[in-house]
Amino acid sequence: MAFSFDIKHAESGSLARVGTITTPHGQIQTPAFIPVGTKATVKSVLPEAMADLGAQALLANAYHLYLQPGADILDEAGGLGEFMNWPGPTFTDSGGFQVLSLGVGFKKVLAMDAKTFRRDDVIADNKERLAHVDDEGVTFKSHLDGSMHRFTPEVSMQVQHQIGADIIFAFDECTTLHNTRPYQVLAMDRTYAWAMRCLDEHKRLTDERSAKPYQALFGVIQGAQYEDLRKKAAGDLGQMQSSGMSFDGFGIGGALDKGALGTIVSWVNQILPENKPKHLLGIGAPEDLFVGVENGIDTFDCVLASRIARTSAVYTMEGRFNLSNSGFKRDFTAIDDECDCYTCTHYTRAYMHHVFRGKEIISATLATIHNERFIVRLVDQMRQALLDGNFKEMKADFLGRYKHRSGQASD
Amino acid sequence: MAFSFDIKHAESGSLARVGTITTPHGQIQTPAFIPVGTKATVKSVLPEAMADLGAQALLANAYHLYLQPGADILDEAGGLGEFMNWPGPTFTDSGGFQVLSLGVGFKKVLAMDAKTFRRDDVIADNKERLAHVDDEGVTFKSHLDGSMHRFTPEVSMQVQHQIGADIIFAFDECTTLHNTRPYQVLAMDRTYAWAMRCLDEHKRLTDERSAKPYQALFGVIQGAQYEDLRKKAAGDLGQMQSSGMSFDGFGIGGALDKGALGTIVSWVNQILPENKPKHLLGIGAPEDLFVGVENGIDTFDCVLASRIARTSAVYTMEGRFNLSNSGFKRDFTAIDDECDCYTCTHYTRAYMHHVFRGKEIISATLATIHNERFIVRLVDQMRQALLDGNFKEMKADFLGRYKHRSGQASD
Repeated sequence: MAFSFDIKHAESGSLARVGTITTPHGQIQTPAFIPVGTKATVKSVLPEAMADLGAQALLANAYHLYLQPGADILDEAGGLGEFMNWPGPTFTDSGGFQVLSLGVGFKKVLAMDAKTFRRDDVIADNKERLAHVDDEGVTFKSHLDGSMHRFTPEVSMQVQHQIGADIIFAFDECTTLHNTRPYQVLAMDRTYAWAMRCLDEHKRLTDERSAKPYQALFGVIQGAQYEDLRKKAAGDLGQMQSSGMSFDGFGIGGALDKGALGTIVSWVNQILPENKPKHLLGIGAPEDLFVGVENGIDTFDCVLASRIARTSAVYTMEGRFNLSNSGFKRDFTAIDDECDCYTCTHYTRAYMHHVFRGKEIISATLATIHNERFIVRLVDQMRQALLDGNFKEMKADFLGRYKHRSGQASD
Repeated sequence: MAFSFDIKHAESGSLARVGTITTPHGQIQTPAFIPVGTKATVKSVLPEAMADLGAQALLANAYHLYLQPGADILDEAGGLGEFMNWPGPTFTDSGGFQVLSLGVGFKKVLAMDAKTFRRDDVIADNKERLAHVDDEGVTFKSHLDGSMHRFTPEVSMQVQHQIGADIIFAFDECTTLHNTRPYQVLAMDRTYAWAMRCLDEHKRLTDERSAKPYQALFGVIQGAQYEDLRKKAAGDLGQMQSSGMSFDGFGIGGALDKGALGTIVSWVNQILPENKPKHLLGIGAPEDLFVGVENGIDTFDCVLASRIARTSAVYTMEGRFNLSNSGFKRDFTAIDDECDCYTCTHYTRAYMHHVFRGKEIISATLATIHNERFIVRLVDQMRQALLDGNFKEMKADFLGRYKHRSGQASD
């Protein structure tokens, strides 16, 4: 089984640690930020540029690749990495988040901020949703052509085996903070039953496709903002065994109230087996990465860095700003003079302003390279700080300078 | 004066030759195809990738850069090459084509095919045009914000000096094949007077900015499809001297009936001074490049390769096709198995089909790299064939295999 996780250093007095994940396509030094390439491409950036900026692995979306080009195409191509020209480790999510986020009926993505709480009934009735959940799985409508599809735990495993990433996730029911507690309990029970079915199907597919590289399966911990539910889910999935297999690692997912992120992650990671890697799904704002690392998260993925790049927003050590603002028209300095990325070492803010104003494709490429480098390097610096024994100082230094401007989305 | 042109080999019995253009930013081995980076970026491709695929120089558009970000910004940045991170030679056109092509009032670009001839009056009346020509210059409306601007020969020289490319073009009145002969005569006379004013202003600016690298000025030969007009223009501009300067090279431009391309170019190049480089403006379809080379053209520029790439159309030795066609969904071969470009050596048609269908930005990047490589290499191969003495065979081999499918635009 070509998958392992070795802890090289564990911080005393916290859950933070430094380790190495080994996959059939290479190693990941953790903690690590894993950039997202939803449809088997990090939007606007060539894979070599992602390697140059320090990306150790990439994460793609099973839902999107299932719909287009189809998981069978990736299987024929020799798997996700071969298809997209990325020789290193890869992840795919289960599709659970995507098929269900379509269904809430009022937001493109699941709400992640308890302050935006509204009444439970803002969630569309089941009959109005684009996704319908039952105990067996989820029926959903394609966002591409309106065609109807059904994901079950077994389908998700089959799709993810065809896509062939090194690390895949169990199919879970992803709720939102808007759901009632009784619904969260119901969804957690379903997620438990689905996790068991995922382990079974994963075992069957691993045996059936034994000539293929081993794919590690991570269980996904739900439970929203409820301590008892999160702890129960962590205890149940952490110990779960079926068909002689247990989970190779864990994802912390679902409704994560950003104000309580550290608390929720710590509830879960205190209970999950210490020696297995923990992935925080879909979280990637700078301040949240610190919270994750100090509470035992080993890997992160998030579209934030690349999504905001395409709107001209860039991270710097002094905070985030928009390159399309007219003040940058004659600014011949780098985006961030402390950054070592390709963009900062070759282009000025004036050039970036010009290509954003001109709607030139290269604006997305250059800004994405910068933002992904910023986030990858920030987590790399946390790893080094843990090894050097000065994580707290490094965090204080960073947050003292970095201004997350009010009014800007943090996820 | 850091500009020169050396002829290394002249074909006997034809106007074709092999040479070297030397500029302050490096050499260009000719004949050569010069990719276009309209707004100081080859759309969707990083400059290092353009160098990797063999581009020796890039051409940007003075009209676009004048409007946004403004030529003064490029001057402050240290010139076009420094601004866009391209260390090699650069060209800018004069803006004449762009400001006038806006004015014809019925097509985005000037008609280049005599078969589409309609009555003279299909050209919008002067009062309906976006550009108004008089003997002194052109008044035109910005396509960006509707603001009014005026280019004269002097303004074009000033703008191009601020942009700072190694090779710049005289400001000419670019007509279309729809114009009447009397109008072509009038425009040619204006272009003659403007050429003289360009030489004067170029001399003044070169002296005033003597600390800057020398910029070579190319005169532009107009005359549409009329032999006497083309020959007169070539004779006049070829011998023109003013303020102690003459043109460093020549552009063949304006209304070029594609069916008579070789004839028109040969009229001009038989008369222009042999020892100066000749640039064919805006021509770049494979079959036209052969016609240009055998009639004495040294350099070409054209947006065709990159523009069609963004619509999924790619060149191969067997002809042109569209990667978004469903037949490529499971085609795990390269776009062109004879191509050595980054795209063909790392990606399959199936992947390209996927990213085009998914509207992923990387589709433009990868297809543009392939098409630009195809055209750059084709002209490189012509250069080698001239040196090897087998240009005719090479041309026959290529055109025997390459199928320019009917119904596809050739420019």
